[in-house]
Amino acid sequence: MTPMNRPLVESLTGDPAIARHFAADAELAAMLRFERELAAAQAALGLAPAEAASAIGRTADALRWPWAAEDIRQGMARDGVPVPALVRALRAAVGVPHDAFVHQGATSQDVVDTGLMLRIQAVFGELRTHLDTLLGALDGLAERDGSVAVMAQTRMQAALPFTAADKIATWRTPLAEAARRLDERASRLPIQLGGPVGTGDSFGPRVRELRADLARRLDLLDAAPWHSDRTPILDVAQLFALLAGTLGKVGQDLALLTQTDRGAIRLASGGGSSAMAHKSNPVGAEALVALGRLNAGLLGLLAQSLIHENERSGAAWTLEWMVLPQMAEAAGAALRIATDLVDGARFQAI
Amino acid sequence: MTPMNRPLVESLTGDPAIARHFAADAELAAMLRFERELAAAQAALGLAPAEAASAIGRTADALRWPWAAEDIRQGMARDGVPVPALVRALRAAVGVPHDAFVHQGATSQDVVDTGLMLRIQAVFGELRTHLDTLLGALDGLAERDGSVAVMAQTRMQAALPFTAADKIATWRTPLAEAARRLDERASRLPIQLGGPVGTGDSFGPRVRELRADLARRLDLLDAAPWHSDRTPILDVAQLFALLAGTLGKVGQDLALLTQTDRGAIRLASGGGSSAMAHKSNPVGAEALVALGRLNAGLLGLLAQSLIHENERSGAAWTLEWMVLPQMAEAAGAALRIATDLVDGARFQAI
Amino acid sequence: MTPMNRPLVESLTGDPAIARHFAADAELAAMLRFERELAAAQAALGLAPAEAASAIGRTADALRWPWAAEDIRQGMARDGVPVPALVRALRAAVGVPHDAFVHQGATSQDVVDTGLMLRIQAVFGELRTHLDTLLGALDGLAERDGSVAVMAQTRMQAALPFTAADKIATWRTPLAEAARRLDERASRLPIQLGGPVGTGDSFGPRVRELRADLARRLDLLDAAPWHSDRTPILDVAQLFALLAGTLGKVGQDLALLTQTDRGAIRLASGGGSSAMAHKSNPVGAEALVALGRLNAGLLGLLAQSLIHENERSGAAWTLEWMVLPQMAEAAGAALRIATDLVDGARFQAI
Amino acid sequence: MTPMNRPLVESLTGDPAIARHFAADAELAAMLRFERELAAAQAALGLAPAEAASAIGRTADALRWPWAAEDIRQGMARDGVPVPALVRALRAAVGVPHDAFVHQGATSQDVVDTGLMLRIQAVFGELRTHLDTLLGALDGLAERDGSVAVMAQTRMQAALPFTAADKIATWRTPLAEAARRLDERASRLPIQLGGPVGTGDSFGPRVRELRADLARRLDLLDAAPWHSDRTPILDVAQLFALLAGTLGKVGQDLALLTQTDRGAIRLASGGGSSAMAHKSNPVGAEALVALGRLNAGLLGLLAQSLIHENERSGAAWTLEWMVLPQMAEAAGAALRIATDLVDGARFQAI
Repeated sequence: MTPMNRPLVESLTGDPAIARHFAADAELAAMLRFERELAAAQAALGLAPAEAASAIGRTADALRWPWAAEDIRQGMARDGVPVPALVRALRAAVGVPHDAFVHQGATSQDVVDTGLMLRIQAVFGELRTHLDTLLGALDGLAERDGSVAVMAQTRMQAALPFTAADKIATWRTPLAEAARRLDERASRLPIQLGGPVGTGDSFGPRVRELRADLARRLDLLDAAPWHSDRTPILDVAQLFALLAGTLGKVGQDLALLTQTDRGAIRLASGGGSSAMAHKSNPVGAEALVALGRLNAGLLGLLAQSLIHENERSGAAWTLEWMVLPQMAEAAGAALRIATDLVDGARFQAI
Repeated sequence: MTPMNRPLVESLTGDPAIARHFAADAELAAMLRFERELAAAQAALGLAPAEAASAIGRTADALRWPWAAEDIRQGMARDGVPVPALVRALRAAVGVPHDAFVHQGATSQDVVDTGLMLRIQAVFGELRTHLDTLLGALDGLAERDGSVAVMAQTRMQAALPFTAADKIATWRTPLAEAARRLDERASRLPIQLGGPVGTGDSFGPRVRELRADLARRLDLLDAAPWHSDRTPILDVAQLFALLAGTLGKVGQDLALLTQTDRGAIRLASGGGSSAMAHKSNPVGAEALVALGRLNAGLLGLLAQSLIHENERSGAAWTLEWMVLPQMAEAAGAALRIATDLVDGARFQAI
Repeated sequence: MTPMNRPLVESLTGDPAIARHFAADAELAAMLRFERELAAAQAALGLAPAEAASAIGRTADALRWPWAAEDIRQGMARDGVPVPALVRALRAAVGVPHDAFVHQGATSQDVVDTGLMLRIQAVFGELRTHLDTLLGALDGLAERDGSVAVMAQTRMQAALPFTAADKIATWRTPLAEAARRLDERASRLPIQLGGPVGTGDSFGPRVRELRADLARRLDLLDAAPWHSDRTPILDVAQLFALLAGTLGKVGQDLALLTQTDRGAIRLASGGGSSAMAHKSNPVGAEALVALGRLNAGLLGLLAQSLIHENERSGAAWTLEWMVLPQMAEAAGAALRIATDLVDGARFQAI
Repeated sequence: MTPMNRPLVESLTGDPAIARHFAADAELAAMLRFERELAAAQAALGLAPAEAASAIGRTADALRWPWAAEDIRQGMARDGVPVPALVRALRAAVGVPHDAFVHQGATSQDVVDTGLMLRIQAVFGELRTHLDTLLGALDGLAERDGSVAVMAQTRMQAALPFTAADKIATWRTPLAEAARRLDERASRLPIQLGGPVGTGDSFGPRVRELRADLARRLDLLDAAPWHSDRTPILDVAQLFALLAGTLGKVGQDLALLTQTDRGAIRLASGGGSSAMAHKSNPVGAEALVALGRLNAGLLGLLAQSLIHENERSGAAWTLEWMVLPQMAEAAGAALRIATDLVDGARFQAI
């Protein structure tokens, strides 16, 4: 698929800025960053010659996408991870004698899991920015329309009147909490460094120092190996589900509040119909509901990966790779759509 | 169904001690506790006569299951919540003139959600105790067999030898983290007090003081109304999924390690077969996998409830009631089964 | 839990008549029926003495719940299936010399899976009856209110007027299709008879004749062993999901159509509120939505059991036992609730 | 994302040949085919001038991707469906006076749902071919290795010996059944033709004749409108889940059978490790498990769309668009991987 012929639904529910972090070039960049900093950290501890680390760093920095991409893609299909092919190609690029210090002590999982966390960190940063924009839009809406009387609805029936400000607060509170959690979680994304079977032995006796320094260099949390404990992945996924679900609730509210003969809210722009010229459909609101339900179900699928057999499960791991990126993208798309909706929403007095 | 003819599978995968907290009598007791303490807190603030609070408290304490149970059950079927019938019955029991101060300002959701949190608190307490036992059993196993050489397995293939202690640590670490989270979450289970549409107005201008005092009396977190924000429910569910999933991983490992011609571990007792006398099946280990997968899928279902339309969704709420209790019970059963398995496990040198 | 203290939500979303088929007594009765007819079929082929078959039949018929229930329950917890304990108890009851012909050639899975299909058959029969009642209620509603003008709603917005009859037809068509599928599936519920590893060898060279005769006696489809192919279970589950999902759509429509300031439909009875006397909540309609979402999610969980390792997976099998019965009960409850709603619904001209 | 930087995991778990049918160009082609044949069928019934139908047909045939793609993509984002923009562009291309007969009587859902079914038909055709290849590979394996003695495994323990042919039959039987279902379902993929609110009135009094003729032209089943009944979508999804789940079981068996110290089966090629040169990982087998679990969970998510509110749910519909294509691709990828594995598998005598 090319950017042009990607599925039409992505124009509505996609988020290219988030998807970008899960593209092959971003994956490779993150893995190269790991290899470069690993060598640097090993050199700092005297576990590798400074020249080797510096050669590895220089080489990694100079490699330009799509360097070795086809080989690595074939390696992925054959090995179930891109790392053996990547390491082979990097070693060839570094050349004798420093190639011996590439990927020293590390295993595929160290590279893949740490590389993922580096990209999640970037994703969290973007989501956080978009969330701030949305919170600002909600504040703007509250300032503008907050005093409008709105009929609260419980169990699909008119309950009692309250104000638009009250309503907006029910949307804002869980989003502010999600922002707090994004910050907290961003500061606790863990490095993975365990070697072949997770004991860290392959890195030598000073593995804890090495890990702490490498974590510092990558701006990740220094943490014990979690190669077979997927809690950190579930934590990330829950945040994506929480964001999309919370926004799905906003979308459901908006879709209900814009029903024709109700009109407690009006949206700036509605979708047109190919058959009924009078229609103005709450397309964005419906998309929020769909994205919220998507991430809810995907969370349940991701949680199946907790059952990660023995020291490394290719099956559970592969499932994560197929599920987590779409959850991130759905969260990003939901933030974008919600901000547009809120920016254009006007409460109507009942 | 009676205790005797409950489904046979529950003998394997049930946890009556946890299920008990979701039985009608426990539900009613928690709701009465809310009503009693609400009246007491209102009296303390001068919002109700001390005599009324004391009459309500005395009456609530004296009510004995199955007091009004049939009426409340019928009310549940009719109203979708047990609260209208419960309040009617409690008012009748309290009698004139104090009945006017029963459920003052409150709505069904205050009673139901707070009542649920009171029971989750009890459930967390029991799970925490069982988790300590399990952690102790793992420590015992590590002490006994920790030095045994075991072949680490990655991607279903022998990797490198490590020790039973290394293996046990991969099981223990996420469980210790789950214990930490149980403690943290237990201290942050929120009260729900918002009145009919969640604004708290029905409790008068001193609603924040009232809520803080009521939270203190119920040993819950003083928190803003979360009537349409189901994050707190998802947080609880994620813990149940994490417990069962982490133990599902232990079960999967044990089932793999006990394969006949492998024998890296031996379990104290295996299940018999009706056809093959030589079989010793790792029944508990398989049950752990099943419980882990159950709670993973149920987490995804529970997350659908985040899309909670408007100020109260009968649909999303009812879904929570059907899903969350079985997640709690599955977590409890998994802890019980895992402890039995670990107590009886013996690592065999490869 | 006793019938009295079963969770309150079951008053709304339970179906005791369906749940009954998954109670221990019904499970045991179905398994005993299998053992009795197996012996009879073996006698008919000369594979067992007629006296033995007749003694086994007499004994099985005379056993009265809770015969051996406690032993079998303990056996379930220990063996992961109730069959070894059941067979032991049945043999003891039959006594020497006929006990040797109890469970001849069979394995636990033959008994459990065939016993399940016998109960599914009964469940399908009840659902079919209730579905007929509902279809009749829809026909009655169409006859009564069919000509009322109703505003069709697309994407949450008024589209064009059509009639109540048009609307009702959109509910009825998929339900009529579900009825057709219930009949078709009921006639194709398969026997399981494969012996220890599914090859049928343990039943001797005339296993195909034996299986055909036993299927005839149990009114099941004669089918090749499906011990590790769970397609038949998924087929049953899909029907439960389809029923609850189709009715969930009806519930969602009803909840939307009864919104206060809309009133295109009026329900006979609404749920009361503990705080707002004017409320009449569409409780049944919301419960339908919840049951539809429950069975949707559970279908995805059940489908995980397709990954049934080797010749028998205790893990996948146990997961089925925990999930399928609640799907059946949800389908039954949805039918009951929908019939009540339709019986009491009145369309209002727009 | 470009073809080159698509996520690395797709090299393992993707199926570009299936994904192609869900790309924008294939979507547009299917929708244009609907519009062309609709005009032709209307002309055949005298509902449109023959010249108009022929002008529309000629124009549609001459349009070449990426004709109007950017407009349609923007329309999708705005309208929630691509049809209004598509129809506008097609009318402009057809020009006065024939443009009046473009999309006559139709609504977006007619175009989108029928267009989807046209592509599902093509997908089914490809899956069927690949399934035949796989069934042939299994027959070849049975012929070659069928007589090899293999230890059957029940509940993760050695049970009794049987033959490789017995084992292979347990894989083949559900796949042959899936092939039968693919054929049956392919012949029953329904046209959607209902107009704005599903009553067909917009097509005039001869709508049934029109629908029958259009179905014939598109090689789809003539069927009543199913705009708010998503059973046909669930049926398609269940087939994808069944294929991937059945192959997930094969993958799980292969991964278990290739464990190092077991060796009941040997695979032609294994994945390499970046840290352990001796490893030969059953990468394809693990990918099958992951794909099976993916489609199981996605089936549960898809089933949420059964709750399709009123005459058209933008939310449920959008969810379908995000979920169904990946299920199709996962089924295709699983077939490809399984065929490779079976081709290269050799049973080893125990």
